[in-house]
Formats: sequence, C-alpha cells, structure tokens
Amino acid sequence: MYLEKINGPADVKKLDSAQLKALAQEMREAMLARASVHGGHFGPDFGIVEATIALHYVFNSPADKLIFDISHQTYPHKMLTGRKEAYLDPAHYDDVSGFSSPAESPHDFFELGHTSTSISLAVGMAKARDLAAAADGQVGPADNIVALMGDGSLSGGEGLEGLNTAAELKSNFIIVINDNQWSIAENHGGLYRSLAHLRESKGQASDNLFAAMGFDYRYVDEGNDVNALIQAFREVKDIDHPVVVHIRTVKGLGYRPAMEHEEDWHWHGPFDIASGQSPVYSGEDYARLTGEYLMERAAKDPRLLVVASGVPASLGLDARMRAQLGDHYIDVGIAEQTAVAVASGAAKGGAHVVYGTEATFIQRAYDQLFQDLSINQNPATILVFDASLYGMNDITHVGFYDIAMMSNIPGLVMLAPATWEEYKAMLDWSIDQTDHPAIIRVPALAPRHEDPSQVRTDYSQLGKARVISQGEDSQVAVVAMGDFLPLGRQVCQELESKGVAASLIDPVFLSHLDQGLLERIAAKKELTVVLEDGSQEGGFGAKVASALAPSGTKVLSRGFAKRFYDRYRPEDVLAANRLEPGQVVADIMAALA
Amino acid sequence: MYLEKINGPADVKKLDSAQLKALAQEMREAMLARASVHGGHFGPDFGIVEATIALHYVFNSPADKLIFDISHQTYPHKMLTGRKEAYLDPAHYDDVSGFSSPAESPHDFFELGHTSTSISLAVGMAKARDLAAAADGQVGPADNIVALMGDGSLSGGEGLEGLNTAAELKSNFIIVINDNQWSIAENHGGLYRSLAHLRESKGQASDNLFAAMGFDYRYVDEGNDVNALIQAFREVKDIDHPVVVHIRTVKGLGYRPAMEHEEDWHWHGPFDIASGQSPVYSGEDYARLTGEYLMERAAKDPRLLVVASGVPASLGLDARMRAQLGDHYIDVGIAEQTAVAVASGAAKGGAHVVYGTEATFIQRAYDQLFQDLSINQNPATILVFDASLYGMNDITHVGFYDIAMMSNIPGLVMLAPATWEEYKAMLDWSIDQTDHPAIIRVPALAPRHEDPSQVRTDYSQLGKARVISQGEDSQVAVVAMGDFLPLGRQVCQELESKGVAASLIDPVFLSHLDQGLLERIAAKKELTVVLEDGSQEGGFGAKVASALAPSGTKVLSRGFAKRFYDRYRPEDVLAANRLEPGQVVADIMAALA
Repeated sequence: MYLEKINGPADVKKLDSAQLKALAQEMREAMLARASVHGGHFGPDFGIVEATIALHYVFNSPADKLIFDISHQTYPHKMLTGRKEAYLDPAHYDDVSGFSSPAESPHDFFELGHTSTSISLAVGMAKARDLAAAADGQVGPADNIVALMGDGSLSGGEGLEGLNTAAELKSNFIIVINDNQWSIAENHGGLYRSLAHLRESKGQASDNLFAAMGFDYRYVDEGNDVNALIQAFREVKDIDHPVVVHIRTVKGLGYRPAMEHEEDWHWHGPFDIASGQSPVYSGEDYARLTGEYLMERAAKDPRLLVVASGVPASLGLDARMRAQLGDHYIDVGIAEQTAVAVASGAAKGGAHVVYGTEATFIQRAYDQLFQDLSINQNPATILVFDASLYGMNDITHVGFYDIAMMSNIPGLVMLAPATWEEYKAMLDWSIDQTDHPAIIRVPALAPRHEDPSQVRTDYSQLGKARVISQGEDSQVAVVAMGDFLPLGRQVCQELESKGVAASLIDPVFLSHLDQGLLERIAAKKELTVVLEDGSQEGGFGAKVASALAPSGTKVLSRGFAKRFYDRYRPEDVLAANRLEPGQVVADIMAALA
Repeated sequence: MYLEKINGPADVKKLDSAQLKALAQEMREAMLARASVHGGHFGPDFGIVEATIALHYVFNSPADKLIFDISHQTYPHKMLTGRKEAYLDPAHYDDVSGFSSPAESPHDFFELGHTSTSISLAVGMAKARDLAAAADGQVGPADNIVALMGDGSLSGGEGLEGLNTAAELKSNFIIVINDNQWSIAENHGGLYRSLAHLRESKGQASDNLFAAMGFDYRYVDEGNDVNALIQAFREVKDIDHPVVVHIRTVKGLGYRPAMEHEEDWHWHGPFDIASGQSPVYSGEDYARLTGEYLMERAAKDPRLLVVASGVPASLGLDARMRAQLGDHYIDVGIAEQTAVAVASGAAKGGAHVVYGTEATFIQRAYDQLFQDLSINQNPATILVFDASLYGMNDITHVGFYDIAMMSNIPGLVMLAPATWEEYKAMLDWSIDQTDHPAIIRVPALAPRHEDPSQVRTDYSQLGKARVISQGEDSQVAVVAMGDFLPLGRQVCQELESKGVAASLIDPVFLSHLDQGLLERIAAKKELTVVLEDGSQEGGFGAKVASALAPSGTKVLSRGFAKRFYDRYRPEDVLAANRLEPGQVVADIMAALA
C-alpha cells in the first residue's frame, strides 16, 4: 500500500505514474470505508483525488500555497499532508475536521466552510508574498499561490469579485477551476452555458468567462487523469501572471451510486457500501414538512415563488418536486445576496415569495436583508434553517448568530415557532400579508406538535408574546423560544416543585418586544430569565435586559457566550453557558435569595 | 422651454428629435444650477441624460419598469417623471431625495443606495410579472423589465450574481449597461479590459463578459446620442429573452470640470459654475489624517498593504497618493466582500493590512468579517468611517448600525477612538499586533485632540475601559464613546452642578466589556447610563444592560431606536431618543429619585 507510506507531499513526489494511479485507488477506498461509517462530504472529494495528487506532485506545499474553496473537498489533501491515519484507522476518524484547518497542519491556511472565498483570500496571500519579496530583495521565482474553486462556487458573488480582482495581479497566481458540472444540486446561471461550451470545445469556445475576466486560460479535459494534470500544472508552475486552469472532473468518481445521484451524494451519512443504501429516516423533519407545504401551496396559489440559493434540500425540495414547481421555483445558484434581492423584487411585483436557507448561509446577505429587502418593506418570507444549538456544529457552519444579526435590522419581523402547527400558521400569515418582510426561524429538532386550534393565526400585532402559563403571584418570568421552549417548561416545573411560582412566556417574536408585558413585569420587579437558543450578545435577551434595566428588575439573560464553537456537543455548550435546567434553577434560587 | 412642460413620460414622447436634444440641454442646465447651490451626485447624472430621455421615449413607465442601480443617477429620471420642480425651482430643491424613491413616484420601485443590486431586484420583478401573466391567462407581450447598471457596479458580487441569474430567464429582460468608464474613482478589475475591448471593437470583441454569462448582446457606441439610443431601445423593446444593451457614455458630459476630473465630480458640493471652484475646506478631517498616516507608514513599513473597495477618498487617498503607494495599494472595485477576504489573506501572509470603508458599505461584508477574517483571527486592521449619527444621512447610507453588526461577531476587536491622538495610537497598535482582526470606528466629526502622552499605546487588554473622571462617591456612571464623549462630559458636568457625583467612562472597546469595572459598578448598584452613538438594539449599551441586569443595577441604555432614519437632522434624532444633555440629566434625576 502506497498511502501508508505517504507522510507528506515529498512522499508523493517519489512515486511513478503507475504508483500514483494506484495511490488514487487506495485513497478512494479509504475514503469510501470511512464515509460508510462516519459520513461526510463525498462527491467533491471523490472527484478531486487526481488533481490533489498532481498538485502535491508538482508544487511544493506549504511553500507553494494551495488555498481550497469551502474546503469540504480537502479529504485527499489531508491524506497526503500527514493526516492519512484519519482516513485509514477508524480510531482516528475524528482526528480531523471536515474542512481545511490551520490548527491541523501547516499545509492548511484558512478555516473555510463558506463558498466562493478562495480566490479573494489567495489574492491577499499573493499581495503579501510580493511585498515580502520586495522587502527582502528576493530574486527569482516566488512561491506559487494556487486557489482552487469548484464550478458551483462560481455563482457566488465573492468568487466572481475575486476573479475580477485576481486578473489584475502582475505576478504568479494560479486558479484551478474544478468543473464537476455540479453545485450541491444542479448548477444554475448563464455562466454554466459558457462552461459547457468550453468543455464541449475542449477549451476553445469564444464565450469564455475567464478570458472575459482578463485571464490567461488552459483547459484539461481529463481532469481525473494524473498524468494530464501533472503536465498542465507543470506548465503553469512559476508562471509570472494570473492563469486559470479549467479541469473537467467527475463528481463522486469511483463509486457508482455517487456518480449516478450526485446531489444525494454531495454529502452523505453512513451507508452500506455494497448497496449504497442508508437506513431510511421515516420520522418527520421540518425540511420535509416545508417541502410538502410549498407543494400544496403552489397547487392553489398561482403567485407563489420559491427561491433557493443552491441548497434546495433545506426547503425539502428534491429534483422531482422542483420540476413540478416549474415557474414557481428559481434557484439562483450559491448566491444568497441575489436570492434576497430576487425575493424582494418579486414581492414588490406581487408574487408570494418564500426563500429559505441555513442560518450560517443567510449571513452572506446581511446587507441585502437590510437594504434590498427591509428598507423597501417588501413582504417576502424568509425561512432560516439550522438556526439553533441543534443545527450544524462545524466552526464555519454554526447557525446561532442569526438573532443577533437579523433582529437588530430595522423593519424585519422575526418569528420563532415552537411547533409545526405554529410554523404552519406563521407561513400562512406571512405569505398572505403584505406589510413586512418576515423571517421565520424554523426549529432544528424533530417537530413537536400542539392542538392547531390553540395556535394564533394573526401575527400582525408585532411583538405580542404568548403567555404559556401564568403562575399565581408569579415571582419569576421564564422566557424561552423555539427549540428551547421545553427547557423553559422544565425550569418552571422545577421551580414550582420548590414552591416558586413562575410564568412561562414564549416571545413568538425575536425582533419586537411585548411592551405591555414588560411593563407589567417591571412594575412587579419580577425576576426575568431569558433562555435563548442563540448567541447571548446582541440577541433577544439583551433586548429584554435593556428594556427592564431602567426599572432595576433583575434579568438573567442566558444564551451562548460570544466565542467560536467547533464540533461541539450541545450538552457541553448548555453546561458551559449555565443553560442546563438544574443550573438555571439554581441561579434563579440564588437571585431570589 | 420644453422641460417646463414635461409632467410625465407621455410628454417626452410628444417631442421630435431636435426637441429631445434641446430637452437634454435644458436638463443639464437645470442640474448644473441646482448642483451649484445644493450639491449632490454629478457625473453619473450628466452622463445618463440622453439614455434616460430615450428610455422614457421608447418604454412606457411605470407599466414598463425601469430599475436603477444605486440610483444616484436618477436625477434625469426624476425630472421626466413629474418631479421637475425639484430641479427647476430652488424653493423645491429639497422635495426629492438623491435616490430612487417609491414614496415620491410610481415610476420608482425601490429605495436604493448600495451598488450592484438592480439586476437581481429586476429578476424578481420579472418572475412576478411572469407568474401574474400566467395566473391571469395573459396573451401578448408582457411589460418590459429594464435594469440599469453602471460599469463601476459590475465589480460588485451581487451584480455579477445577478447577471448570472438573469441570463437564464426565459422571458423579456433588458439590462442597460451604462459604461462611462468610471467607478467612483478609476475602475479596477480584469473585466474592465473586456469592456475596453468591446468599446474599441464597437461591440465585436470576443472576450465579451455578457456573452460569456449567456446574454444576447447589443452595443451602442454613441450613448449620449438620443437618436441612436432610441433606435437601440426600440430594437429590444418587447424582446422575449434576456439581452444586454451596452452603451458608452461620458461621465459629467456638458460640464468641463466634471469631464476633466471625473473622480472629484462623482459627487460634489456647491460650487461656482464659471470656475468649478468650491470654498476650500482647510480644516482637519479624519480622512485626510488617515491618508497622511498611511503615506508615512508606507515610507517606513515595506509590508504595509492598503486595501480599498472603490472609495479610496474615505481613506484620504487621492490619485497622486495612490500612485505613490504603488504595490502597497490595492483597490478591488466596489467589492467589500473581496476587500475583507484580501485583507484577511494578506494578513495571514504577513502583510500589515489596513482596509477602510464607510459603515454603510462594510455591511456588505458581514459574512466575510465573520468567516474569512474573524474565524481565522488574521490581524488585519479595518477602518470604519461615517459610523456615527454625524455620518451620511440618506436612508440607504445611515452608518450607525455597525456596532450592532460587528460587536456581536466573535473574535473581532472593535475600538472607538475619541481623539486623533487616540486613533493614531490605535492604528499603531493594531497594525503592529498579530493577535486579532481589529476594527477602528473612526469619528465622523472634526478631529478633537488631547495630550498624546495621556493616550494608551497598548490595547491588548481587551475590554479595558478608560475612566475619564471618577466622582467621589459617584452615584452615576456615564458611559460614552467616540463623538459622544463630549456629550457624556456635558452630562457629568450638569449632574455635578446639581450636586450629583458622576463618573465618566470611555469604554474604548465596543466589542468587549470591562468586567472588573462592571463588577465594581454592580457592587455599588451605581446608576449606569450608556450614551451610544449607534443603534440601541444589539449595541454596546445592550451588552452593559445584560451584564448588570442580574444585579438589579439600574441601567439607562440610550442609543437610536431601531427604525429607519432618512435625511435627518442629528439634533432631531438626539431629541427623539432622549439623548439631549438636558433630557439625559432629567432622566437620571428621575431614576435617582
């Protein structure tokens, strides 16, 4: 086995052509075995095995710098840069993150998990390199800067901005476009016609995006052929200007189910290798319920427009459903900024608009939420998924900063349902109303349910909270929302068992306060406890604390301390932030004493 | 005079060719007269006079929808859509905003002031139009959707994303690219070479960005010739697919100083028409001081890299200074996302990086500040200008949401200097340190000064506040920062005059709290008043209120209520938010009573 002997790029360089091919096969086998029990990104990594081998064969990492985009395709890179055990030995599977990580290796330069960033980051590296060379009076070729970007990532604004900027550099700069003809789902956008023409013409077509952006350009048709790649990379190594090397690869190459079902295998959970089958999750989830809701709505609402930004699965929409939606559906590519602007424009034009994505990705559209949408008060509905402690937990994918980000933008209405029935009622209201842009923060845990007749249908009274239970002569007001509502209920029950009367309040709105309720609390100086499934600073609890602070009412505003969290266990984050039920009760008792 | 008779687009359509040319001349004269006393955007409007006339001549606004980008070039549009008095009669100069505004006219569809948004918004309008047509069973040509975008705006990611998305539409969609060969300053990026080739070849060059994005394409070389434009727009009216009409125009056409000094006349204050001269402001301002600082630093620091995103004047850098900076300077175009990523990458590579822009524009890089920069903890310095009540005051340019936006992102250090000497000390520290990305919130008022020997040089103790004055047995802690520090001082003096002992605290940091200080305040239950030059919700005062709330310490957290502000007078905003010194003192006295 060659892979076992690879402790770094130098060991790759020792292999001959046949051995490199065998290495590629071993790498795929190791990734397959690991993925089948561990899960993770799949298709992107299987497609880029040969390119990664060739890059390490030709370039001298880390002196030459390989900057990956999103970096969920760095599994082969990690295997060749001293981290092979994490792919060969099940006991070490968790040693590495799913993304590029400077903490793991000097061959990694950035923690990356959002799309379209590599070229712009690499431009910075190139500028720093050139300044350092000038400062040191360096003569001769500089280190190579190599930025990798997938074709899917080209639809993102930062990627296109980066291309535009990089083309003006006057020194070595190499962009490898890994064209596997897929985004997470299918690609969307006019530029993909250009890429198709380039593939069909073996790089000769005149509608060449990269040439139009000002680049020297090379095309490699056999992007899974190590020899062809080595030759292409040798030709551009130490080049003295910016160049794009466009390589055609096959997503999921080497594993038939992944090659036949690219979208399903972009990321995949554990599976049976022989069949490609995974245990089917038969329970409910909010994505599925959302997709079913949208299909039903489309059938009866000719003005419904569903907007996606490259991740339609978040909205519970598979390829069949998307086809059925037809003109009711638009995927703008991985372009959250444009998704929000399209949603605003369509709402202005009278369409009934629903756009949805993950909390970590909506971050990319702060200004569009503010300017394109909210200042214009167009009534689009925006669904935010995985906005919770219980969402994704990689450092770049943590999704609980959304309240701090969006609830402080004027004019946005932000709703936090706690059950499916409440979520559905909010969807109905939000899509029908014409007054406000509305954000619905979809819970991340499995759906809970309640009697639909108990659910409010009109949310036009902004800020109006829901008093779930009102303790007689309540001494404590417990405020909890969404996936944290059961925590609030448990705290109230434990307080009651200690003889402390408590009220349980679901704020319903995260963007607006219930002023009447707060005035009543302030008048009674009732100890108020906010249990927030989000970052504490800038969040809802901080609003409550600010509102009650002039009265001297004690407030315990609990959320997650402002710091980075990576691959955490939710229970650890709860404990560290004194959000375990016992901790909350103990702190309340101490505050009452 | 023809202009006096134009009450709407129908009146434009009545004019013949010679009359349209005369109208254009009248419009320029009116704009010149108004600009000379009122100030405002200049060059973009003077260049787009003929295109605006031709658009209203050919299309039927508002059934056909003209969507402007940024919309500071809508003066001619406003003149032709019922708002001519605002350009003809000095008494009505203030009747209109400087931007597109649906509140003013049904011919305007969006409040817009940030760049690169028009195409994406218009895609939404087109989708809504097509759904409505299908729902109504409409037969025959639909209303035209026309999105205008300047060449400068093409460097922004949302614009490029929008192009990519628009190219896939299957129905009428017209993009007019107004190519005046300028951004605010000169254009930057590889795509501008493509535009130059297209201009030189009269639209025939093969490196065609628009064709590469999938568009049908037309070129109009005489973009200031009404007849040529009318013919071009007639040819695309009612087209059944997306098309780009690329028109070459002259920025500032009709006024020699503006044609010769495009950057100075992008926006211009009042001036003498004959000479083009304005009163020279000889006083200090922070932009000028910043530019001088950067030039001095560049002379002695070979690793300095200054990053701009299309607005180098914010950094006090004129064309001569930029040329002198040479490789120490990079302008990425109007691409704040890429600017932050380049800053992060260059800092990672060891460069000493300073990036700066206005508070309203840094909003476009929330995710890059979070992911590309802060997660990676690369020590770039980011200067935020006009982040204050005293910055720009158009609804789309208000700059006081920055604390709420950035101070809640983990890992960012946010500093608020109150004097030039403190700002300079923070610059020195920030550029030299290697531990954190740091934001410096530059004051917006004229620089104040203090004894440099009194200024801290080391800001590595994050959160450490500056106790400016400590009242003996102080009952009140007044916390104020930046441009509001004098307000805090005035409040303290008035309190002292009433016999109330008060301390004045400058927090210095907006991202971190001084825990020791807060503990001392909580122990004494000292009434705490935060005077924040920013949005109250999500801001620094909310952090203080949250921190003190468990102790029941009374806190008055004063900032600007979360709502939109437009063309405000600072004194009105202060009064409405009880931030006048007398109001603050009265509220403190009431809270103490």
